[in-house]
Amino acid sequence: VAVSGPGRCDEGLAALAEEVGRRLAEAGCVVLTGGRGGVMAAASRGARRAGGTAVGILPGEDARASPPNEDLELAIYTGMGQARNAVLALSAGALIAIGGGWGTLSEVALARKHGRRVVLLASWTLRRPGGEAPSDVEVAQSAAEAVALALADPAMAPPR
Amino acid sequence: VAVSGPGRCDEGLAALAEEVGRRLAEAGCVVLTGGRGGVMAAASRGARRAGGTAVGILPGEDARASPPNEDLELAIYTGMGQARNAVLALSAGALIAIGGGWGTLSEVALARKHGRRVVLLASWTLRRPGGEAPSDVEVAQSAAEAVALALADPAMAPPR
Amino acid sequence: VAVSGPGRCDEGLAALAEEVGRRLAEAGCVVLTGGRGGVMAAASRGARRAGGTAVGILPGEDARASPPNEDLELAIYTGMGQARNAVLALSAGALIAIGGGWGTLSEVALARKHGRRVVLLASWTLRRPGGEAPSDVEVAQSAAEAVALALADPAMAPPR
Amino acid sequence: VAVSGPGRCDEGLAALAEEVGRRLAEAGCVVLTGGRGGVMAAASRGARRAGGTAVGILPGEDARASPPNEDLELAIYTGMGQARNAVLALSAGALIAIGGGWGTLSEVALARKHGRRVVLLASWTLRRPGGEAPSDVEVAQSAAEAVALALADPAMAPPR
Repeated sequence: VAVSGPGRCDEGLAALAEEVGRRLAEAGCVVLTGGRGGVMAAASRGARRAGGTAVGILPGEDARASPPNEDLELAIYTGMGQARNAVLALSAGALIAIGGGWGTLSEVALARKHGRRVVLLASWTLRRPGGEAPSDVEVAQSAAEAVALALADPAMAPPR
Repeated sequence: VAVSGPGRCDEGLAALAEEVGRRLAEAGCVVLTGGRGGVMAAASRGARRAGGTAVGILPGEDARASPPNEDLELAIYTGMGQARNAVLALSAGALIAIGGGWGTLSEVALARKHGRRVVLLASWTLRRPGGEAPSDVEVAQSAAEAVALALADPAMAPPR
Repeated sequence: VAVSGPGRCDEGLAALAEEVGRRLAEAGCVVLTGGRGGVMAAASRGARRAGGTAVGILPGEDARASPPNEDLELAIYTGMGQARNAVLALSAGALIAIGGGWGTLSEVALARKHGRRVVLLASWTLRRPGGEAPSDVEVAQSAAEAVALALADPAMAPPR
Repeated sequence: VAVSGPGRCDEGLAALAEEVGRRLAEAGCVVLTGGRGGVMAAASRGARRAGGTAVGILPGEDARASPPNEDLELAIYTGMGQARNAVLALSAGALIAIGGGWGTLSEVALARKHGRRVVLLASWTLRRPGGEAPSDVEVAQSAAEAVALALADPAMAPPR
């Protein structure tokens, strides 16, 4: 399961992200993130402290260009900038998006484009041109609900 | 200027996209698209019929994997699937998004992540976590307005 | 047709590259390069001076990160670093490699991996593990021969 | 440390690759490969049997498009085709190339372009335009020597 979110965030968002990381690790999932700070660091920390594994998919070419957060067991350097968001979206069966950055939104969209399950938590509100909410993303009210939705049966509507 | 939109669309959206392509070509712009059908084909057609240049940035490895639309002067094959959306977002100074696909939304988000000007036309409605509309994208009500906004002075707010 | 070569080169290599660019333009081809200096700039210059079109596929996110050479009609910014070499290798039916850089060698290998025709000119000498030269790349002794081989009938051996 | 090699190979090459994977795992390294068959599968198998960790960076969008080999602890799906070779080249401090495929050669070149240590084992012979062997790759005669060279002090010549 991937956790997506901005590289800088306030304490409330960090606490949410850390709880999501912890709950995913307790459920036996590897936690994939973009490997940087903010939400990404908090989710990685939560996973590691719960005895789980955090893996980061970084935008830069090496640790100097993209310092990884300190809780990663493995750092994948793509050297592809934000195109790495597509790798993150593909490499997980589900994505939990926390917060409202543009990078986060790109990961939501790329994950849905590829039919991956997406759960929004304290994140963007989206309306299609006609005004309706997209039926193929889930909206969670808490970290516990986000993890439950992400791990629910994967029979979702295909991307539209 | 890039024009982003789904590979399949109804006639109304196609007419909008064709007008956008025509107006951009009349303004002397190269029209960049994802090179496929639907909105992308209509914008390319509009540009070419107005004597302009349409360039496509395709997801597949060759013309068999990603048939280009017939109005392209140049087809760039990336072989990178939806990660090509990042290339499209970067290669233009401004992006006009038409319609409500997930791929389109990913291009909107990637373009803003990189500080490119973004104009939404008959596209997604976006609200940040707190409920406010993002201040750094423009919303147009017509093809003419979309082109005018895309070509306006590029001093926009930086990405947030 | 793509022309691949290092971003810095001596005058002899630049003269070769400029002649290749000119001959490709005279044959009606768009000249694709990595868009930077050295061999890439010389090939673009040759194409443009012959009235042709030079297109660059740049590694950086914008003109500040990757200054394009001044003879490009179109600059595609990938923001993907050396992964842009895969885009260059795919977007042309044939690749002429000039000089001996590592980036150039990666483009040769990626082009052959995808079954594109490859011509080496003053470039690497390659031997497979058993010692034999690969049968699926051409070696040219002059710019004229390189262009002739690149434009020859495309029925080549598939990649091995 | 990354191990690069073709997706199909004979038993001799597979035995070499498996020994390399085993020795890297015994040295405490994560073994990164392209995640497919042949040399990649053999190296992953060697690592896993020695109690180590094998990670694959796959070209396709999911397990159906790119079936991962069965010894991977983690599969990263890039959906980027051969552009994933750049990710593999970047994500390791050193690359051991086994066998003579074009994809393998692209990884050698990309790794050197980025200054990563490269060791060739039963792989390509390379000569620069002037005829000299590149001074910045190592050539090993055995799996043991390849691993020793890959793990040697990383003070190598910068890429040329």
